[in-house]
Amino acid sequence: MLRAAAVQMSSGPDKRANLEKAEALVRAAAGQGAGLAVLPEVFNWRGPRGGEAENAETIPGPSSERLAALARELGIYLQAGSITERIASDPRCYNTALLFGPNGEILGRYRKIHLFDVEIPAQVSACESQTRKPGTETVAVATPIGTIGLSVCYDLRFPELYRRLVRAGAEILCIPSAFTFPTGAAHWETLVRARAIENQCYVVAPGQFGPSPHGYRNYGNSMIVDPWGTVVARASEGEGVIVAEIRRDHLERVRQELPCLTHIRLES
Amino acid sequence: MLRAAAVQMSSGPDKRANLEKAEALVRAAAGQGAGLAVLPEVFNWRGPRGGEAENAETIPGPSSERLAALARELGIYLQAGSITERIASDPRCYNTALLFGPNGEILGRYRKIHLFDVEIPAQVSACESQTRKPGTETVAVATPIGTIGLSVCYDLRFPELYRRLVRAGAEILCIPSAFTFPTGAAHWETLVRARAIENQCYVVAPGQFGPSPHGYRNYGNSMIVDPWGTVVARASEGEGVIVAEIRRDHLERVRQELPCLTHIRLES
Repeated sequence: MLRAAAVQMSSGPDKRANLEKAEALVRAAAGQGAGLAVLPEVFNWRGPRGGEAENAETIPGPSSERLAALARELGIYLQAGSITERIASDPRCYNTALLFGPNGEILGRYRKIHLFDVEIPAQVSACESQTRKPGTETVAVATPIGTIGLSVCYDLRFPELYRRLVRAGAEILCIPSAFTFPTGAAHWETLVRARAIENQCYVVAPGQFGPSPHGYRNYGNSMIVDPWGTVVARASEGEGVIVAEIRRDHLERVRQELPCLTHIRLES
Repeated sequence: MLRAAAVQMSSGPDKRANLEKAEALVRAAAGQGAGLAVLPEVFNWRGPRGGEAENAETIPGPSSERLAALARELGIYLQAGSITERIASDPRCYNTALLFGPNGEILGRYRKIHLFDVEIPAQVSACESQTRKPGTETVAVATPIGTIGLSVCYDLRFPELYRRLVRAGAEILCIPSAFTFPTGAAHWETLVRARAIENQCYVVAPGQFGPSPHGYRNYGNSMIVDPWGTVVARASEGEGVIVAEIRRDHLERVRQELPCLTHIRLES
Protein backbone atom coordinates (compact mmCIF):
# COMPACT_ATOMS: atom_id res chain seq x y z
CA MET A 1 0.00 0.00 0.00
CA LEU A 2 1.50 3.29 -1.14
CA ARG A 3 1.26 6.39 0.98
CA ALA A 4 1.92 9.88 -0.40
CA ALA A 5 2.83 12.95 1.60
CA ALA A 6 2.45 16.64 0.84
CA VAL A 7 4.83 18.92 2.74
CA GLN A 8 3.59 22.41 3.60
CA MET A 9 6.32 24.98 4.25
CA SER A 10 6.88 28.66 4.91
CA SER A 11 10.18 29.01 3.11
CA GLY A 12 12.22 32.17 3.59
CA PRO A 13 15.40 33.73 2.25
CA ASP A 14 17.73 31.49 4.34
CA LYS A 15 18.41 28.59 2.01
CA ARG A 16 20.25 26.52 4.60
CA ALA A 17 17.32 26.76 7.00
CA ASN A 18 14.85 25.89 4.25
CA LEU A 19 16.80 22.79 3.26
CA GLU A 20 17.07 21.66 6.87
CA LYS A 21 13.34 22.14 7.38
CA ALA A 22 12.51 20.35 4.15
CA GLU A 23 14.75 17.47 5.09
CA ALA A 24 13.21 17.17 8.54
CA LEU A 25 9.68 17.20 7.12
CA VAL A 26 10.50 14.64 4.44
CA ARG A 27 11.98 12.42 7.17
CA ALA A 28 8.77 12.86 9.13
CA ALA A 29 6.77 11.87 6.04
CA ALA A 30 8.85 8.75 5.54
CA GLY A 31 8.40 8.02 9.24
CA GLN A 32 4.64 8.00 8.61
CA GLY A 33 5.14 5.46 5.86
CA ALA A 34 5.17 7.74 2.83
CA GLY A 35 6.74 6.17 -0.26
CA LEU A 36 6.28 9.42 -2.18
CA ALA A 37 6.87 12.87 -0.70
CA VAL A 38 6.16 16.14 -2.49
CA LEU A 39 7.61 19.52 -1.46
CA PRO A 40 6.10 22.91 -2.39
CA GLU A 41 7.18 25.37 -5.08
CA VAL A 42 10.48 27.23 -4.43
CA PHE A 43 10.85 25.32 -1.17
CA ASN A 44 14.61 25.88 -0.94
CA TRP A 45 14.57 29.65 -1.35
CA ARG A 46 11.82 32.23 -1.25
CA GLY A 47 13.17 35.75 -0.99
CA PRO A 48 13.11 39.19 -2.57
CA ARG A 49 13.01 39.11 -6.34
CA GLY A 50 16.38 40.81 -6.66
CA GLY A 51 18.03 37.88 -4.90
CA GLU A 52 16.73 35.19 -7.17
CA ALA A 53 19.62 34.90 -9.60
CA GLU A 54 22.27 34.50 -6.92
CA ASN A 55 20.21 31.86 -5.15
CA ALA A 56 19.50 29.87 -8.29
CA GLU A 57 21.42 26.64 -8.77
CA THR A 58 22.46 24.37 -11.53
CA ILE A 59 21.04 20.84 -11.66
CA PRO A 60 22.89 18.84 -10.50
CA GLY A 61 23.90 21.32 -7.80
CA PRO A 62 24.05 21.54 -4.01
CA SER A 63 20.28 21.42 -3.40
CA SER A 64 19.56 18.66 -5.89
CA GLU A 65 22.43 16.56 -4.56
CA ARG A 66 21.23 16.92 -1.00
CA LEU A 67 17.72 15.83 -2.02
CA ALA A 68 19.07 12.94 -4.06
CA ALA A 69 20.96 11.72 -1.01
CA LEU A 70 17.83 12.09 1.12
CA ALA A 71 15.68 10.09 -1.31
CA ARG A 72 18.35 7.40 -1.47
CA GLU A 73 18.78 7.23 2.30
CA LEU A 74 15.02 6.96 2.91
CA GLY A 75 14.41 4.78 -0.13
CA ILE A 76 11.45 6.88 -1.28
CA TYR A 77 10.28 8.78 -4.33
CA LEU A 78 10.79 12.48 -3.73
CA GLN A 79 9.20 15.14 -5.89
CA ALA A 80 11.27 18.05 -4.77
CA GLY A 81 8.70 20.80 -5.32
CA SER A 82 10.52 23.32 -7.42
CA ILE A 83 13.84 25.08 -7.25
CA THR A 84 15.10 27.99 -9.31
CA GLU A 85 17.42 26.48 -11.89
CA ARG A 86 20.34 28.45 -13.28
CA ILE A 87 21.51 27.69 -16.76
CA ALA A 88 24.70 28.80 -18.41
CA SER A 89 24.78 31.98 -20.47
CA ASP A 90 21.25 33.14 -19.66
CA PRO A 91 20.29 35.63 -16.94
CA ARG A 92 16.83 34.12 -16.69
CA CYS A 93 16.26 30.92 -14.74
CA TYR A 94 13.79 28.07 -14.91
CA ASN A 95 11.30 27.14 -12.20
CA THR A 96 12.13 23.45 -12.13
CA ALA A 97 10.43 20.44 -10.55
CA LEU A 98 12.57 17.34 -10.01
CA LEU A 99 11.51 13.79 -9.32
CA PHE A 100 14.04 11.60 -7.51
CA GLY A 101 13.78 7.83 -7.35
CA PRO A 102 14.59 5.72 -4.29
CA ASN A 103 18.15 5.28 -5.55
CA GLY A 104 18.63 9.03 -5.64
CA GLU A 105 18.58 9.24 -9.40
CA ILE A 106 16.77 12.08 -11.19
CA LEU A 107 13.81 10.42 -12.90
CA GLY A 108 12.18 13.58 -14.21
CA ARG A 109 12.97 17.26 -14.67
CA TYR A 110 10.05 19.57 -15.51
CA ARG A 111 10.48 23.28 -16.17
CA LYS A 112 7.33 25.28 -15.39
CA ILE A 113 5.59 26.18 -18.62
CA HIS A 114 3.08 28.82 -17.46
CA LEU A 115 4.60 31.80 -15.67
CA PHE A 116 2.67 33.88 -13.15
CA ASP A 117 2.24 37.40 -14.55
CA VAL A 118 -0.66 38.87 -12.62
CA GLU A 119 -1.67 42.33 -11.40
CA ILE A 120 -4.61 42.46 -9.03
CA PRO A 121 -4.61 45.99 -7.57
CA ALA A 122 -3.76 46.16 -3.87
CA GLN A 123 -3.62 42.36 -3.65
CA VAL A 124 -1.17 40.60 -5.96
CA SER A 125 1.60 41.93 -8.16
CA ALA A 126 3.82 39.38 -9.88
CA CYS A 127 5.73 39.17 -13.11
CA GLU A 128 7.50 35.83 -13.01
CA SER A 129 8.52 36.10 -16.66
CA GLN A 130 10.80 39.04 -15.85
CA THR A 131 13.28 36.74 -14.17
CA ARG A 132 12.32 33.31 -15.45
CA LYS A 133 12.03 31.48 -18.73
CA PRO A 134 9.16 29.13 -19.50
CA GLY A 135 9.80 25.47 -20.13
CA THR A 136 8.35 23.81 -23.18
CA GLU A 137 8.20 20.08 -22.37
CA THR A 138 5.57 18.15 -20.43
CA VAL A 139 6.95 15.41 -18.18
CA ALA A 140 5.22 12.20 -17.08
CA VAL A 141 7.42 9.52 -15.53
CA ALA A 142 6.45 5.86 -15.39
CA THR A 143 7.57 4.33 -12.08
CA PRO A 144 6.72 1.16 -10.16
CA ILE A 145 4.39 3.20 -7.92
CA GLY A 146 2.49 4.68 -10.88
CA THR A 147 3.04 7.21 -13.60
CA ILE A 148 3.76 10.60 -12.08
CA GLY A 149 2.90 13.82 -13.94
CA LEU A 150 4.80 16.99 -13.04
CA SER A 151 3.56 20.59 -12.94
CA VAL A 152 4.10 23.72 -10.84
CA CYS A 153 1.59 26.13 -9.23
CA TYR A 154 0.16 28.47 -11.90
CA ASP A 155 0.14 25.53 -14.35
CA LEU A 156 -2.93 24.44 -12.39
CA ARG A 157 -5.05 26.91 -14.38
CA PHE A 158 -4.31 25.20 -17.68
CA PRO A 159 -6.33 22.01 -18.14
CA GLU A 160 -4.63 21.15 -21.45
CA LEU A 161 -1.37 20.47 -19.59
CA TYR A 162 -3.01 17.80 -17.43
CA ARG A 163 -4.74 16.30 -20.46
CA ARG A 164 -1.29 15.76 -21.95
CA LEU A 165 -0.06 14.20 -18.74
CA VAL A 166 -3.00 11.82 -18.46
CA ARG A 167 -2.65 10.88 -22.13
CA ALA A 168 0.95 10.01 -21.26
CA GLY A 169 -0.39 7.66 -18.60
CA ALA A 170 -0.35 9.85 -15.49
CA GLU A 171 -2.02 8.40 -12.39
CA ILE A 172 -0.51 10.75 -9.79
CA LEU A 173 -0.32 14.48 -10.50
CA CYS A 174 2.10 16.59 -8.46
CA ILE A 175 1.28 20.30 -8.19
CA PRO A 176 3.84 21.93 -5.86
CA SER A 177 2.56 25.45 -5.35
CA ALA A 178 2.75 28.84 -3.69
CA PHE A 179 -0.73 30.21 -4.39
CA THR A 180 -1.42 33.69 -3.08
CA PHE A 181 -4.12 34.07 -0.47
CA PRO A 182 -6.74 35.88 -2.62
CA THR A 183 -6.37 33.60 -5.64
CA GLY A 184 -6.00 30.56 -3.42
CA ALA A 185 -9.14 31.25 -1.42
CA ALA A 186 -11.10 31.78 -4.65
CA HIS A 187 -9.66 29.04 -6.88
CA TRP A 188 -7.24 26.58 -5.29
CA GLU A 189 -9.48 23.81 -4.01
CA THR A 190 -11.85 23.99 -6.98
CA LEU A 191 -9.07 23.67 -9.54
CA VAL A 192 -7.11 21.00 -7.66
CA ARG A 193 -10.25 18.88 -7.32
CA ALA A 194 -11.26 19.52 -10.93
CA ARG A 195 -7.90 18.21 -12.19
CA ALA A 196 -8.38 15.08 -10.09
CA ILE A 197 -11.98 14.55 -11.25
CA GLU A 198 -11.59 15.21 -14.96
CA ASN A 199 -8.35 13.21 -15.23
CA GLN A 200 -9.27 10.55 -12.65
CA CYS A 201 -5.88 10.86 -10.99
CA TYR A 202 -4.57 11.27 -7.48
CA VAL A 203 -3.36 14.83 -6.98
CA VAL A 204 -0.67 15.71 -4.45
CA ALA A 205 -0.63 19.48 -4.09
CA PRO A 206 1.55 21.00 -1.35
CA GLY A 207 1.66 24.75 -0.94
CA GLN A 208 3.65 27.47 0.74
CA PHE A 209 1.88 28.91 3.77
CA GLY A 210 1.82 32.36 5.31
CA PRO A 211 3.64 35.65 4.69
CA SER A 212 5.83 35.73 1.61
CA PRO A 213 8.71 38.07 0.84
CA HIS A 214 6.59 39.45 -2.00
CA GLY A 215 4.19 41.28 0.27
CA TYR A 216 1.27 38.87 0.09
CA ARG A 217 0.37 35.80 2.10
CA ASN A 218 0.47 32.34 0.65
CA TYR A 219 -2.69 30.29 0.94
CA GLY A 220 -1.40 26.95 2.20
CA ASN A 221 -4.28 24.46 2.24
CA SER A 222 -1.97 21.73 0.93
CA MET A 223 -4.10 18.82 -0.14
CA ILE A 224 -4.20 15.31 -1.45
CA VAL A 225 -7.22 14.46 -3.61
CA ASP A 226 -8.33 11.06 -4.83
CA PRO A 227 -9.48 10.25 -8.39
CA TRP A 228 -13.14 10.73 -7.43
CA GLY A 229 -12.33 14.27 -6.30
CA THR A 230 -12.50 13.62 -2.57
CA VAL A 231 -10.06 15.66 -0.48
CA VAL A 232 -8.43 12.82 1.46
CA ALA A 233 -5.95 15.02 3.35
CA ARG A 234 -5.70 18.75 3.97
CA ALA A 235 -3.10 20.76 5.84
CA SER A 236 -4.01 23.03 8.70
CA GLU A 237 -2.10 26.24 9.43
CA GLY A 238 1.67 26.36 9.52
CA GLU A 239 4.36 23.97 8.37
CA GLY A 240 3.82 20.24 8.40
CA VAL A 241 3.12 17.02 6.61
CA ILE A 242 -0.14 15.43 5.45
CA VAL A 243 -0.33 11.82 4.34
CA ALA A 244 -2.90 9.78 2.43
CA GLU A 245 -3.10 6.38 0.81
CA ILE A 246 -2.73 6.04 -2.93
CA ARG A 247 -4.94 3.10 -3.81
CA ARG A 248 -4.56 1.64 -7.26
CA ASP A 249 -7.75 -0.40 -6.88
CA HIS A 250 -9.72 2.78 -6.18
CA LEU A 251 -8.23 4.56 -9.19
CA GLU A 252 -9.00 1.61 -11.43
CA ARG A 253 -12.57 1.31 -10.17
CA VAL A 254 -13.26 5.00 -10.76
CA ARG A 255 -11.89 4.76 -14.29
CA GLN A 256 -13.93 1.64 -14.99
CA GLU A 257 -17.27 2.83 -13.58
CA LEU A 258 -17.17 6.33 -15.03
CA PRO A 259 -14.93 5.80 -18.08
CA CYS A 260 -14.78 9.44 -19.17
CA LEU A 261 -11.11 9.16 -20.16
CA THR A 262 -12.19 6.73 -22.88
CA HIS A 263 -14.88 9.21 -24.01
CA ILE A 264 -12.56 12.05 -24.96
CA ARG A 265 -13.49 13.04 -28.51
CA LEU A 266 -11.70 16.35 -29.05
CA GLU A 267 -7.95 16.63 -29.27
CA SER A 268 -6.07 18.54 -26.61
CA MET B 1 -27.50 45.46 -17.52
CA LEU B 2 -28.05 41.88 -18.68
CA ARG B 3 -29.67 39.33 -16.43
CA ALA B 4 -29.46 35.60 -17.09
CA ALA B 5 -31.79 32.94 -15.76
CA ALA B 6 -31.32 29.23 -15.19
CA VAL B 7 -34.54 27.20 -15.13
CA GLN B 8 -34.60 24.10 -12.93
CA MET B 9 -37.20 21.48 -13.90
CA SER B 10 -38.39 17.99 -13.07
CA SER B 11 -39.44 16.96 -16.55
CA GLY B 12 -41.47 13.80 -17.00
CA PRO B 13 -42.89 11.72 -19.82
CA ASP B 14 -45.79 14.15 -20.56
CA LYS B 15 -44.35 16.39 -23.24
CA ARG B 16 -47.27 18.80 -23.26
CA ALA B 17 -46.96 19.34 -19.49
CA ASN B 18 -43.20 19.83 -19.78
CA LEU B 19 -43.58 22.45 -22.49
CA GLU B 20 -46.23 24.30 -20.50
CA LYS B 21 -44.04 24.28 -17.40
CA ALA B 22 -40.99 25.40 -19.36
CA GLU B 23 -42.96 28.21 -20.94
CA ALA B 24 -44.33 29.36 -17.59
CA LEU B 25 -40.86 29.35 -16.03
CA VAL B 26 -39.29 31.22 -18.94
CA ARG B 27 -42.05 33.81 -18.65
CA ALA B 28 -41.27 34.10 -14.95
CA ALA B 29 -37.59 34.58 -15.79
CA ALA B 30 -38.41 37.32 -18.28
CA GLY B 31 -40.65 38.87 -15.65
CA GLN B 32 -37.59 39.09 -13.40
CA GLY B 33 -35.75 40.93 -16.14
CA ALA B 34 -33.82 38.07 -17.71
CA GLY B 35 -32.57 38.79 -21.21
CA LEU B 36 -31.17 35.26 -21.48
CA ALA B 37 -32.96 32.18 -20.16
CA VAL B 38 -31.49 28.67 -20.15
CA LEU B 39 -33.53 25.47 -19.79
CA PRO B 40 -32.12 22.10 -18.62
CA GLU B 41 -31.17 19.05 -20.67
CA VAL B 42 -34.10 17.09 -22.18
CA PHE B 43 -36.51 19.60 -20.68
CA ASN B 44 -39.36 18.76 -23.08
CA TRP B 45 -39.39 15.01 -22.53
CA ARG B 46 -37.78 12.76 -19.95
CA GLY B 47 -39.24 9.27 -19.99
CA PRO B 48 -38.39 5.59 -20.26
CA ARG B 49 -35.62 4.85 -22.73
CA GLY B 50 -37.92 2.85 -24.98
CA GLY B 51 -40.04 5.94 -25.61
CA GLU B 52 -37.26 8.17 -26.77
CA ALA B 53 -37.50 7.67 -30.52
CA GLU B 54 -41.21 8.39 -30.70
CA ASN B 55 -40.79 11.54 -28.60
CA ALA B 56 -37.88 12.87 -30.63
CA GLU B 57 -38.57 15.72 -33.00
CA THR B 58 -37.14 17.26 -36.08
CA ILE B 59 -35.73 20.78 -35.90
CA PRO B 60 -37.65 22.81 -36.85
CA GLY B 61 -40.49 20.89 -35.26
CA PRO B 62 -43.32 21.46 -32.77
CA SER B 63 -41.12 22.06 -29.69
CA SER B 64 -38.60 24.27 -31.45
CA GLU B 65 -41.36 26.32 -33.06
CA ARG B 66 -43.09 26.86 -29.75
CA LEU B 67 -39.84 28.02 -28.16
CA ALA B 68 -39.05 30.27 -31.10
CA ALA B 69 -42.43 31.94 -30.68
CA LEU B 70 -41.80 32.32 -26.94
CA ALA B 71 -38.39 33.94 -27.46
CA ARG B 72 -39.88 36.30 -30.03
CA GLU B 73 -42.86 37.22 -27.86
CA LEU B 74 -40.66 37.95 -24.83
CA GLY B 75 -37.85 39.49 -26.88
CA ILE B 76 -35.17 37.46 -25.10
CA TYR B 77 -32.37 35.05 -25.91
CA LEU B 78 -33.50 31.55 -25.07
CA GLN B 79 -31.07 28.65 -24.81
CA ALA B 80 -33.58 25.85 -24.94
CA GLY B 81 -31.64 23.31 -22.90
CA SER B 82 -31.62 20.25 -25.05
CA ILE B 83 -34.23 18.25 -26.92
CA THR B 84 -33.91 14.87 -28.56
CA GLU B 85 -33.54 15.57 -32.28
CA ARG B 86 -34.77 13.10 -34.85
CA ILE B 87 -33.03 13.00 -38.17
CA ALA B 88 -34.20 11.29 -41.32
CA SER B 89 -33.06 7.76 -42.08
CA ASP B 90 -31.28 7.10 -38.77
CA PRO B 91 -32.80 5.34 -35.76
CA ARG B 92 -30.40 7.18 -33.43
CA CYS B 93 -31.11 10.76 -32.40
CA TYR B 94 -29.00 13.73 -31.35
CA ASN B 95 -29.12 15.45 -27.97
CA THR B 96 -29.41 18.96 -29.31
CA ALA B 97 -29.08 22.38 -27.68
CA LEU B 98 -30.67 25.31 -29.51
CA LEU B 99 -30.11 29.02 -29.04
CA PHE B 100 -32.95 31.30 -30.11
CA GLY B 101 -32.56 35.03 -30.60
CA PRO B 102 -35.12 37.66 -29.60
CA ASN B 103 -36.66 37.51 -33.06
CA GLY B 104 -37.26 33.79 -32.65
CA GLU B 105 -34.56 32.79 -35.11
CA ILE B 106 -32.30 29.80 -34.41
CA LEU B 107 -28.86 31.33 -33.81
CA GLY B 108 -27.06 28.11 -32.84
CA ARG B 109 -27.63 24.36 -32.94
CA TYR B 110 -25.22 22.22 -30.92
CA ARG B 111 -25.38 18.42 -30.87
CA LYS B 112 -23.94 16.92 -27.68
CA ILE B 113 -20.50 15.52 -28.41
CA HIS B 114 -19.81 13.43 -25.28
CA LEU B 115 -22.42 10.77 -24.54
CA PHE B 116 -23.07 9.46 -21.03
CA ASP B 117 -22.10 5.77 -20.91
CA VAL B 118 -21.60 5.01 -17.23
CA GLU B 119 -22.08 2.01 -14.97
CA ILE B 120 -21.75 2.67 -11.25
CA PRO B 121 -23.09 -0.47 -9.53
CA ALA B 122 -26.32 0.09 -7.62
CA GLN B 123 -26.22 3.81 -8.39
CA VAL B 124 -26.14 4.81 -12.05
CA SER B 125 -26.61 2.78 -15.22
CA ALA B 126 -26.71 4.70 -18.47
CA CYS B 127 -25.71 4.04 -22.06
CA GLU B 128 -26.70 7.16 -23.97
CA SER B 129 -24.83 6.02 -27.07
CA GLN B 130 -27.27 3.12 -27.53
CA THR B 131 -29.99 5.50 -28.66
CA ARG B 132 -28.10 8.65 -29.58
CA LYS B 133 -25.39 9.76 -31.95
CA PRO B 134 -22.62 12.14 -30.90
CA GLY B 135 -22.29 15.51 -32.57
CA THR B 136 -18.95 16.63 -33.92
CA GLU B 137 -19.08 20.43 -34.08
CA THR B 138 -18.46 22.96 -31.31
CA VAL B 139 -20.77 25.98 -31.38
CA ALA B 140 -20.08 29.48 -30.08
CA VAL B 141 -22.46 32.21 -31.19
CA ALA B 142 -21.56 35.91 -31.18
CA THR B 143 -24.55 38.01 -30.09
CA PRO B 144 -25.05 41.57 -28.90
CA ILE B 145 -25.21 40.28 -25.29
CA GLY B 146 -21.90 38.39 -25.60
CA THR B 147 -20.58 35.29 -27.28
CA ILE B 148 -22.48 32.24 -26.05
CA GLY B 149 -20.84 28.79 -25.98
CA LEU B 150 -23.09 25.73 -26.07
CA SER B 151 -22.62 22.36 -24.35
CA VAL B 152 -24.77 19.71 -22.66
CA CYS B 153 -24.39 17.94 -19.27
CA TYR B 154 -21.70 15.22 -19.55
CA ASP B 155 -19.68 17.55 -21.81
CA LEU B 156 -18.84 19.32 -18.54
CA ARG B 157 -16.18 16.68 -17.83
CA PHE B 158 -14.19 17.57 -20.94
CA PRO B 159 -12.18 20.76 -20.49
CA GLU B 160 -10.92 20.73 -24.08
CA LEU B 161 -14.45 21.50 -25.32
CA TYR B 162 -14.60 24.70 -23.26
CA ARG B 163 -11.10 25.69 -24.40
CA ARG B 164 -12.40 25.58 -27.95
CA LEU B 165 -15.40 27.67 -27.01
CA VAL B 166 -13.33 30.32 -25.23
CA ARG B 167 -10.88 30.42 -28.13
CA ALA B 168 -13.92 31.12 -30.31
CA GLY B 169 -14.68 34.09 -28.07
CA ALA B 170 -17.10 32.61 -25.55
CA GLU B 171 -18.03 34.84 -22.61
CA ILE B 172 -21.14 32.98 -21.44
CA LEU B 173 -21.10 29.17 -21.28
CA CYS B 174 -24.43 27.34 -21.16
CA ILE B 175 -24.41 23.86 -19.60
CA PRO B 176 -27.99 22.53 -19.53
CA SER B 177 -27.79 19.34 -17.52
CA ALA B 178 -29.41 16.37 -15.83
CA PHE B 179 -26.62 15.20 -13.53
CA THR B 180 -27.37 12.15 -11.43
CA PHE B 181 -27.39 12.59 -7.68
CA PRO B 182 -24.20 10.63 -6.87
CA THR B 183 -22.10 12.17 -9.62
CA GLY B 184 -23.67 15.55 -9.05
CA ALA B 185 -22.97 15.60 -5.33
CA ALA B 186 -19.36 14.59 -5.99
CA HIS B 187 -18.52 16.62 -9.09
CA TRP B 188 -21.11 19.14 -10.28
CA GLU B 189 -20.21 22.32 -8.39
CA THR B 190 -16.48 21.72 -8.66
CA LEU B 191 -16.55 21.23 -12.42
CA VAL B 192 -19.00 24.05 -13.13
CA ARG B 193 -16.87 26.47 -11.11
CA ALA B 194 -13.64 25.17 -12.68
CA ARG B 195 -14.96 25.87 -16.19
CA ALA B 196 -15.84 29.41 -15.10
CA ILE B 197 -12.47 29.99 -13.43
CA GLU B 198 -10.16 28.54 -16.05
CA ASN B 199 -12.04 30.12 -18.96
CA GLN B 200 -13.00 33.33 -17.15
CA CYS B 201 -16.57 33.08 -18.39
CA TYR B 202 -20.01 33.33 -16.90
CA VAL B 203 -21.54 29.87 -16.66
CA VAL B 204 -25.30 29.30 -16.70
CA ALA B 205 -25.91 25.70 -15.67
CA PRO B 206 -29.52 24.61 -15.08
CA GLY B 207 -30.23 21.04 -14.09
CA GLN B 208 -33.04 18.56 -13.82
CA PHE B 209 -34.12 17.97 -10.21
CA GLY B 210 -35.49 14.94 -8.41
CA PRO B 211 -36.61 11.46 -9.42
CA SER B 212 -35.96 10.53 -13.03
CA PRO B 213 -37.64 7.84 -15.11
CA HIS B 214 -34.26 6.08 -15.20
CA GLY B 215 -34.36 5.03 -11.57
CA TYR B 216 -31.98 7.58 -10.12
CA ARG B 217 -32.53 11.06 -8.77
CA ASN B 218 -31.22 14.11 -10.56
CA TYR B 219 -29.05 16.46 -8.57
CA GLY B 220 -30.55 19.87 -9.35
CA ASN B 221 -28.34 22.54 -7.81
CA SER B 222 -28.76 24.69 -10.90
CA MET B 223 -26.25 27.50 -10.70
CA ILE B 224 -24.94 30.65 -12.28
CA VAL B 225 -21.23 31.28 -11.74
CA ASP B 226 -19.28 34.44 -12.50
CA PRO B 227 -15.87 34.57 -14.24
CA TRP B 228 -14.04 34.65 -10.88
CA GLY B 229 -15.73 31.37 -9.93
CA THR B 230 -18.22 32.81 -7.48
CA VAL B 231 -21.58 31.05 -7.36
CA VAL B 232 -23.85 34.07 -7.84
CA ALA B 233 -27.13 32.10 -7.88
CA ARG B 234 -28.08 28.59 -6.85
CA ALA B 235 -31.41 26.79 -7.01
CA SER B 236 -33.01 25.28 -3.96
CA GLU B 237 -35.12 22.13 -4.16
CA GLY B 238 -37.83 21.69 -6.75
CA GLU B 239 -38.65 23.51 -9.96
CA GLY B 240 -37.97 27.21 -10.34
CA VAL B 241 -35.92 30.05 -11.73
CA ILE B 242 -32.69 31.62 -10.52
CA VAL B 243 -31.44 34.93 -11.90
CA ALA B 244 -28.12 36.74 -11.78
CA GLU B 245 -26.51 39.71 -13.44
CA ILE B 246 -24.07 39.21 -16.28
CA ARG B 247 -21.64 42.09 -15.93
CA ARG B 248 -19.32 42.73 -18.82
CA ASP B 249 -17.18 45.08 -16.73
CA HIS B 250 -16.58 42.32 -14.18
CA LEU B 251 -15.63 39.81 -16.87
CA GLU B 252 -13.24 42.29 -18.44
CA ARG B 253 -11.63 43.17 -15.11
CA VAL B 254 -11.06 39.52 -14.23
CA ARG B 255 -9.48 38.88 -17.61
CA GLN B 256 -7.29 41.95 -17.30
CA GLU B 257 -6.06 41.40 -13.72
CA LEU B 258 -5.42 37.67 -14.02
CA PRO B 259 -4.75 37.33 -17.75
CA CYS B 260 -4.41 33.55 -17.82
CA LEU B 261 -6.24 33.28 -21.15
CA THR B 262 -3.32 35.15 -22.72
CA HIS B 263 -0.88 32.75 -21.03
CA ILE B 264 -2.07 29.56 -22.71
CA ARG B 265 1.01 27.94 -24.21
CA LEU B 266 -0.14 24.45 -25.15
CA GLU B 267 -2.63 23.77 -27.91
CA SER B 268 -6.00 22.32 -27.05
